[in-house]
Parts: sequence; structure tokens; C-alpha cells
Amino acid sequence: MKIILDAMGGDNAPDANIKGAVNAINKVKAEVVLVGKEEVIRSKVKQFYGKEIEEISDRLKIRNATETIEMEDTPTLAIKRKKDSSMVVGFKMLKEDEGDVFISAGNSGALLTGATLIVGRIKGIDRPALAGILPAYKSQLLLIDAGSNTNCKPINLLQFAQMSTIYLRNTFGIEKPAIGLLNIGTEETKGNELVRESYKLLKEKSEELGINFVGNVEGRDAFSGKIDAIVTDGFTGNVFLKTTEGLGKFVKRTLTESFTSNLLSKISYLIAHKPIKRLSKAMDYKSYGGALFLGVKKPVVKAHGSSDEILFEYTIIQAEKFVENKAVDKMKEQFETKKEEDIHE
Amino acid sequence: MKIILDAMGGDNAPDANIKGAVNAINKVKAEVVLVGKEEVIRSKVKQFYGKEIEEISDRLKIRNATETIEMEDTPTLAIKRKKDSSMVVGFKMLKEDEGDVFISAGNSGALLTGATLIVGRIKGIDRPALAGILPAYKSQLLLIDAGSNTNCKPINLLQFAQMSTIYLRNTFGIEKPAIGLLNIGTEETKGNELVRESYKLLKEKSEELGINFVGNVEGRDAFSGKIDAIVTDGFTGNVFLKTTEGLGKFVKRTLTESFTSNLLSKISYLIAHKPIKRLSKAMDYKSYGGALFLGVKKPVVKAHGSSDEILFEYTIIQAEKFVENKAVDKMKEQFETKKEEDIHE
Repeated sequence: MKIILDAMGGDNAPDANIKGAVNAINKVKAEVVLVGKEEVIRSKVKQFYGKEIEEISDRLKIRNATETIEMEDTPTLAIKRKKDSSMVVGFKMLKEDEGDVFISAGNSGALLTGATLIVGRIKGIDRPALAGILPAYKSQLLLIDAGSNTNCKPINLLQFAQMSTIYLRNTFGIEKPAIGLLNIGTEETKGNELVRESYKLLKEKSEELGINFVGNVEGRDAFSGKIDAIVTDGFTGNVFLKTTEGLGKFVKRTLTESFTSNLLSKISYLIAHKPIKRLSKAMDYKSYGGALFLGVKKPVVKAHGSSDEILFEYTIIQAEKFVENKAVDKMKEQFETKKEEDIHE
Repeated sequence: MKIILDAMGGDNAPDANIKGAVNAINKVKAEVVLVGKEEVIRSKVKQFYGKEIEEISDRLKIRNATETIEMEDTPTLAIKRKKDSSMVVGFKMLKEDEGDVFISAGNSGALLTGATLIVGRIKGIDRPALAGILPAYKSQLLLIDAGSNTNCKPINLLQFAQMSTIYLRNTFGIEKPAIGLLNIGTEETKGNELVRESYKLLKEKSEELGINFVGNVEGRDAFSGKIDAIVTDGFTGNVFLKTTEGLGKFVKRTLTESFTSNLLSKISYLIAHKPIKRLSKAMDYKSYGGALFLGVKKPVVKAHGSSDEILFEYTIIQAEKFVENKAVDKMKEQFETKKEEDIHE
């Protein structure tokens, strides 16, 4: 297996990307290919570790790419014009089977555009979507669309439900994942037009498509561990995701300050740090490693824009599992076969 | 001052409502009028406290209302037909100046309909909206619309921004409250059509209307304490609110279990409970007491549907402050004067 990593994408690139890859290399079986300016990568490796990249591991490689897509670049233009950027080169490697998964923490719009334009959609899927994995009570919650399609139609949400089912079955071993529709009430009359129409379509098609649709789900029940995936449009999904992140930061900050406010609380932290670390671990969405762009022909992982070396390490490890579980192949199988059946009907 | 409390509304009515009112009566200066089935209220009071309501406090009153609006009732029908329900009687008292604020934990749709139909909108405000107060880093965050208008137009969001400004200035003493537009990115090109159009309108009108508009705000920055109010449509706002609630529950549950998982962690809790309680307190949206329905002519407070006696107590105390600060009067002044100016221009 070969993992392709965009060495130049993200707020902390290339340092965090390089260090993350070095940290991960002895925890994965795959090769890791750093795509970016070769001379920069080589000199950084020498600076950080005092040796050549080949001396660190024979599974750690470099693919030269002379350009970089910046955060300010217009997605479509950047993908079309910066032919030798780390992102475009990475996507082309993925397309031409020179790698099994592409990871980037770079310009999100460019990443989604590149995945669709260069790697291509799976036949039968109208809109690929970002699937984020969030922590939930003694389990995890898949959120789709986490931010790629601001405007959606009911058919898109139905396909998101199908993709989550296939993904969760193959990656988490959940035979009948519970799929909920994000709404502001549980009754079927609740919500805006998109949600009401999507509810009808999901109810009508679920059995036929093998989706375990559990109906409308409110944010207050999302983290209970009873729901495996939440389906929504990319605007609402992104608000959901970032609100979770914002509240998480607020909790951590308040807890930290509370435990350092005086000598007694500092002492109590020494004694109580284990349960608190358990909480931090349970809440840490980072350990799930990046969001998956589901619906394209090959595995594409969007790492968090502010990824540090630890997060890159996690993301690389998770990406290997994602490839091993062949969820994308099974998605292709199911959607493309379905399409043929439709034709032959 | 007179606080009107719907004694029959909410999941735990009338027990929690009655106990909450009794708990609150010595913490407020106002009279509290329990609206509902008089004989039921009297017998419950006798059962809980072993005495008549008059013996508890001469500021605790009952107004008889023989019907109850149920959670399953259709809002508009219920308001129109159940003329002697606790909710309709409460609203009529408010309208006819027999009280200064109305609190209910009952059917939300009916509450919003009743407020608009019976009490009436402030002239110049197209859509009243629910304003929820959430905890934020060393401060609080006003969220408007928290769930009353599923579909909104840019003009509605502009008015929400105006109302929050007046409310926060008068109730929290924040001279120039920072108002943000909830979005999925900070750039003005981000988001769906409603958000992009609202951004333009807010940018154009803010100075003239005295709004300190700080631009787009993402959920991840919402709790930083730098934003005083977040403006959004009722669908997105309700998702935001309930996600916050859901994540809060998850944190509490995980923390509690983490501290009770073994003997050592239980002992450590004995020592560390103070900082943890500080966290709980900082995160507890309940202490802010209910959501306000801004844009109607009199103060209306929507208590949480699952309010217990403690939450009713808080909500009553907060409602008294809300009336004292005269935010609604100031809103009327500003909007109605504005309207006249427009006419005379």
C-alpha cells in the first residue's frame, strides 16, 4: 500500500506534515510518499533529524512538485492552472494507481474540486460529500455532509445515507448502522423544506436500499451513542461540526483554568488528572483522523487545516485502515451495480 | 410587578411549576400568579407543603383556567379554540396589563403563535424571534433565532441583530455588543444564499442602525467570549442550540463516569470536585433561565420544555430582571420611532 501525503498543505506545512509522516512510518505498513518541493523536504528532514530521508525508513519517499496551492487560491482555477502543485500531483498519482489514498490539509475547496475533477465521482453518486467522524458516548458519530455541498437536494441526502451505511459497515463493522436525519424536532412535519422532503424520500427508499433509517434526530440526541450517522446538507453540517469544535475548546479552556486557579486546585489536578484525561480522550475528535471525501473513486482524506505533527500522524494511521477496509471499493460495487440493474430493469 | 406563570405547561407540570414558584417567591419582589386548574394547584400545594397557598406567601396567587394546551395540539387551533387554557388566559392577562411577563414551558408552537396573535408584534418588526442565552468563555452568548422561524429573509436577520443590540445593552449593560452572522467561513462569499444576502444587508445598514456588526462567525469561535450575539435563521439556530445541549450532556456523562469508574477516581473526585463544579456551572445554560421571545409588545419567556423545579425557579428570577431592565419598552421605542421617522422622511 502507498499513502500519498500533500507535504505543502495546511497551516503548519511543511514542518508538521514531514514530522507527522516520520512519526507514523513505524506505525503503518504502507509506504508514505511526501509530495512537494523535494529540496525543501530534504533540507527540513536533515534539519529535524540530522539525516537523509532514506536513512529514516525505506518506506518514506518524496515525489517532487514545484508549486503550492495557497489558502487564498480560487479552487477551480488553482486545480486547473497549478499543474505541478503538490495537490494536483498527488491527485494524479492517486488516479493513475501510483498510490491508494491521498491526504491533504490544504485549501478545502481545491481538495474537493480536485477529487471530483481529477479522481472522479463514482457512477450513481451525484454529489460526493465530506464525512467527519466525531466522538459520541462510548462510540462515534459520522456526520455527512460536513461541509462540501452548501446547497443540497433530497436525492443527495439519500445518497449520503447510503454511503454512510456502506462505510460504517465496512470500517466500523456495524452491520445495520442507525442513520438519522438532522432536524429541529423528531416529528416528520418539522424542519425546512429540504428536510421534510428528504424525510419522505428516506422513508420511502430505505428498505429497498438497505438503510436503517431511524428518522429525525435532534442535536441534543446526536451524541448519545444510539445514532451511528447523521445526514444533513453541507451548510447545516458544517455549522454542527464547528459548533461541536467551539464548545469543545470552551470546555477544555474552562476546565484547564479551573484546575490551575489556585494551589489547591493544582494539587487536586495531580490526583484527578487520569479521569480528566479520559474525558479529553473521549472528546478528542482528532484521534479519528481527518474527514473522508466519500463518493469519489479513490480514498481521499481531508486533514484538519490546522493539523500539527500528532494529528498528521493519526490521520496517516487512520488512512491506512480506511484503505484496508476497502469501503470505497464496496461503494463503487454497490452504486455501479445498482446503476446497471436500473438499466436492465 | 406581576409574573404570570403557566402552571400547566411543560413535561413536569404542574408539580415542577408549582415548586419552582414556591422556591422563587422569596427571591423575587414580584407577585407570581400561577395560571391553571385552581383545585389541582391548591391540592398539590397542600400535598407538598401541608398548607394553603395563601399561607406560603401573600405574593403567590392563582388564576383559574380550566383547559390545558397539550404538546400534541396544533398550535394555531389550540390558541384559537382553547380559550380557557392556562396559556391563552396567561397571554390575555399579559395583554390587558394584569401582569408584566408571561412564562410558559408548554407547547412551543402554541406559545409563539399566542404571543404573536394575542400580545402582538412590535410595529416595525416583521418576525419576532426566540433569543436563547448560552454560556461562553467568561461571558454569555445570545443566539437569535433559536428556533421560531424555520424560513427567514435577510430583513429578518437584520432585525434580529437590532433587537439583540437593544436587549444586550439594556440587560447586560454591554454598550456596543458584538453581533456576528453564523456562517461556515469568515469570508463574505461563504455560505448559502440567505447568509450571503444577509451579510450584505447587515454591512450596509449596521452603521445607520447602531449595530456593531463583526461579520461572519463560525461555530468554533462562537464561545470564545468575543462575540455577544449570533444571528441566524431559526432552523440553523435550533440545530446550533441543540447540538450545544447534546454535547454538554455527553461531556457531563463522560466526566461523571470517568470519576466513578474505580475507587481511585472516586477518591480523586472528592478532592477535585470544586474545579469540576466550576466547569459545570460555567457550562450550565440553565442558569440563564429560558429563552426570550423578542419582538412582541410584552415580555414573553419560553422555559425549557423539560424544566424541573430548579429551572422554573431560575427562570422566574431571570424574568423579573428582564422586566426590570425594560428592554422590551426600549425595543418598542426604537422600532416604533424609527417607523415614524421613515414616514416623515
